[in-house]
Amino acid sequence: MSISVSSPADFHVHLRQGDLSELVTPHVRQGGFRLAYVMPNLTPPITTTDQALEYKSTLERIDPETEFLMTLYLSPDLTPDEVRRAKAAGIVGVKSYPRGVTTNSDGGIESYETYYPVFEAMQEVDMVLNLHGEVPSDPSSNIHVINAEPSFLPHLRKLHFHFPRLRIVLEHATTRAAVETVKSLGDMVACSITAHHLALTVDDWAGQSWNYCKPVAKFPDDREALREVVREGHPRFFLGSPDHGCAAGIYTSPILLPLTAHLLESFGALDKLEGFVSKNGRRFYRKEITPADDGKSMVRLRKGKAAVTGKYSLREQQVVTFWAGKDLDWEIDYHDVH
Amino acid sequence: MSISVSSPADFHVHLRQGDLSELVTPHVRQGGFRLAYVMPNLTPPITTTDQALEYKSTLERIDPETEFLMTLYLSPDLTPDEVRRAKAAGIVGVKSYPRGVTTNSDGGIESYETYYPVFEAMQEVDMVLNLHGEVPSDPSSNIHVINAEPSFLPHLRKLHFHFPRLRIVLEHATTRAAVETVKSLGDMVACSITAHHLALTVDDWAGQSWNYCKPVAKFPDDREALREVVREGHPRFFLGSPDHGCAAGIYTSPILLPLTAHLLESFGALDKLEGFVSKNGRRFYRKEITPADDGKSMVRLRKGKAAVTGKYSLREQQVVTFWAGKDLDWEIDYHDVH
Repeated sequence: MSISVSSPADFHVHLRQGDLSELVTPHVRQGGFRLAYVMPNLTPPITTTDQALEYKSTLERIDPETEFLMTLYLSPDLTPDEVRRAKAAGIVGVKSYPRGVTTNSDGGIESYETYYPVFEAMQEVDMVLNLHGEVPSDPSSNIHVINAEPSFLPHLRKLHFHFPRLRIVLEHATTRAAVETVKSLGDMVACSITAHHLALTVDDWAGQSWNYCKPVAKFPDDREALREVVREGHPRFFLGSPDHGCAAGIYTSPILLPLTAHLLESFGALDKLEGFVSKNGRRFYRKEITPADDGKSMVRLRKGKAAVTGKYSLREQQVVTFWAGKDLDWEIDYHDVH
Repeated sequence: MSISVSSPADFHVHLRQGDLSELVTPHVRQGGFRLAYVMPNLTPPITTTDQALEYKSTLERIDPETEFLMTLYLSPDLTPDEVRRAKAAGIVGVKSYPRGVTTNSDGGIESYETYYPVFEAMQEVDMVLNLHGEVPSDPSSNIHVINAEPSFLPHLRKLHFHFPRLRIVLEHATTRAAVETVKSLGDMVACSITAHHLALTVDDWAGQSWNYCKPVAKFPDDREALREVVREGHPRFFLGSPDHGCAAGIYTSPILLPLTAHLLESFGALDKLEGFVSKNGRRFYRKEITPADDGKSMVRLRKGKAAVTGKYSLREQQVVTFWAGKDLDWEIDYHDVH
């Protein structure tokens, strides 16, 4: 038995810097993906068109066969003019991080109003706003890792209200509340979901720090909401891989397509695989496969137990793979890869 | 500045077996406590009077100066006759563990109805029922580490309804819901609170497995409820130390009294210290200090920065202390200890 997927696209990828970048960038293609939507949270963050283009060149040197879509890091340095310059240079989106919530986000957002002129320009030139949808923990207002995402959703609604023609992606959603909010907001608002959030709940990272990654996996009912929206084949929900920088052990790139197939099959959504890993995201990002490309970019999965390689390393750098030591029911037919 | 506390009593202590027991048992007194209410979850668990008395002798050989109150492990082996025998032998309570929830609780409870004859006998002879108040995780009914305790509270209400004269202690409460339930249930139902649950929230154990211990610390608002009930000086809430078997790093015995003073001072409850660590629990357990004992069993704390010793070991056994590497504002005046 086999499944063919046309040109899988990962719409949330961290490709890092230096040796680590050399190690992880080829894993995108190894994991079955042909396109990587690249996050800008480097040190220093990618805040200008020039930086983004230089980073893109570096990535293309590492793997000339993967298509890299670039983003800028939202910060007070970003101007409407720079947004227009970025768009003209082919940069696709701007990523917003809440202050202190995720890796290298110390310079992240505190209030969105400051950025309204930037969003206005993004809307005008049709760039995508990518939101890390969590508010920072704050004991005095009872904000913590579990309610950080639901507490962010009013910001999402408000942004969409003020910029109704701005394409917005809520990244790596983890809660039923997030799924329902995105569904309610119409065609300009989409949502990425990681593979590991389709697998884990709070019980899996409680006491097992290797399963810890912000946003944290939530409750079984939240996981069920993610699974439901994938099973439903909702066109505005698509795959994005996790922020693997924040913990060893939630690194999925080298196995991403087989893992996603394995998980979708486990909850009866295998028939939605191509939509989830390719067509839905490509439609939203306007990167549809042309009929000319289609044959060239097919990736075939065949049924068959395959053990997951646990670690990859390059010089001082090492990554530990999610699902290590366990089997996956699908593997990429590399002989068939074009 | 100094504070004197009459005969501190820790009403939830795990003293383990073998070398580990030799290592940790003296820490009760080192940490300022004169009485230990001893949990029965050994391997195999303490299910009979004879086992409990033998365990007590072992503990008394290790530290003849600490008073040990013994408990039995609730299991299908426990009969009403054994309850009466235990009571006659001076055993104080019976501990109930939910199946699979905590260390060595594979033989724990599934349904309480089975045990009604045992509870009837306990009520008759006035033994205490100690409840680990969590239901086991179950994805199909959305039970997970965060709602495991609130989901247990209906069981507590039902037990109290059926056995209104049975003394019940909800152990190591972590949620506002638990605090409010215990407060509502009248004089026969009390509650222990650990020191670390007065300090931590979910954000402290997320990704930091050394701060992980079931029941897990919950949200800032839950921690505030625990602090409020201590600050209020509620007579049915008292200290119990954590299940230190479940994770390295939440082991508080050697520093328990200074730590508790430090924490209570941090949220304005230092004047409630003696109630929380001695009088409240002693009243509920009917182990009040007699006027004759009082002078002998005073423990004095003096103000002064003291760094916490990080590790204790004995042969192959090692424990890692909570608060290691940090300072406490109070220390025991050992010169003054009788």
